Amino acid sequence: MPPLTKDVIKFGAFVVTNQVFHLTPLSYALVNLKPLLPGHVLVSPRRLVPRFNDLSQQEVQDLFATVQRVSRTIERVFDASALNIAIQDGQDAGQSVPHVHAHIIPRKKHDLPDPDQIYQMMEGEDGDLARQLRERDDGDGDGDVKRGRFPAVDADERRRPRSEDEMTREAEWLAREMAKDAEVNR
Amino acid sequence: MPPLTKDVIKFGAFVVTNQVFHLTPLSYALVNLKPLLPGHVLVSPRRLVPRFNDLSQQEVQDLFATVQRVSRTIERVFDASALNIAIQDGQDAGQSVPHVHAHIIPRKKHDLPDPDQIYQMMEGEDGDLARQLRERDDGDGDGDVKRGRFPAVDADERRRPRSEDEMTREAEWLAREMAKDAEVNR
Repeated sequence: MPPLTKDVIKFGAFVVTNQVFHLTPLSYALVNLKPLLPGHVLVSPRRLVPRFNDLSQQEVQDLFATVQRVSRTIERVFDASALNIAIQDGQDAGQSVPHVHAHIIPRKKHDLPDPDQIYQMMEGEDGDLARQLRERDDGDGDGDVKRGRFPAVDADERRRPRSEDEMTREAEWLAREMAKDAEVNR
Repeated sequence: MPPLTKDVIKFGAFVVTNQVFHLTPLSYALVNLKPLLPGHVLVSPRRLVPRFNDLSQQEVQDLFATVQRVSRTIERVFDASALNIAIQDGQDAGQSVPHVHAHIIPRKKHDLPDPDQIYQMMEGEDGDLARQLRERDDGDGDGDVKRGRFPAVDADERRRPRSEDEMTREAEWLAREMAKDAEVNR
């Protein structure tokens, strides 16, 4: 499968090109370095803006049309029965990478010992994601992880950062699955 | 101020007409019976559909254009610095009222002893909301609250259900504030 784009795609300060599995003129979807649950992905505007209110009408429209298409494919291929869709809009709402992003997390019955846990994990992951991306990118950070309040998540050794290869393979697989759904819905 | 509409507006099985502070052809915004934090509101499609994927492109577009306008006004009038925007899409993601709804929760620094708490509260409130609406509406329930796993939220006596008058006054105030912002952005 050819690459989706020759552009360098950035999420905040981080280059995430090989994690991107869907691109539109104004938005993109990427797989996660440390998904909270299998299939946890993000959808962002291509323009780097920190707050939802910074988006133009066209960007909002494209972003959520993309969220809807992505969530349809994610729910299908991860055999889920529900989805959490969430934006932490601003640092005081838990945002760590100052680039608008919607979390899409496929859910199924009994996927977590305590179903509420996903929200704590999400806030945790958001901080963790920035730190992990920064470590991977060797110092190209945005300096925006200031709150060390997620020990339970950070201590979960099962959620190791994935390799570039692993993410690239998942992104390529999801790109193919997105293409199948686009074909069906044409 | 004249009522926004002569229609009866329903949220799932519940009549919420006096809680509605903003209406578009396809969406509406309503104040909460038991807001998790001051300014916690919901935005829903007018058509009663349970899942995000059930919405048409036009409905998705209108819903999030409405979320953006509402969140701008809410952040301003509640003097917030950030927002949580979240959809619990399906029962296994914590949805209790089977009618698509986006939570908008204004946030500010140090608004909660533990900032992560909002997510547990949100799952709690969602269940609680359905039960409270059902009790208020005297049995017109949708039978969708099955999980009694939110004792911490239910036990918080400070979050008493608000009176119809209190909600109506807030809805009227927010409708005026929305109109001011529409004027500014014209």
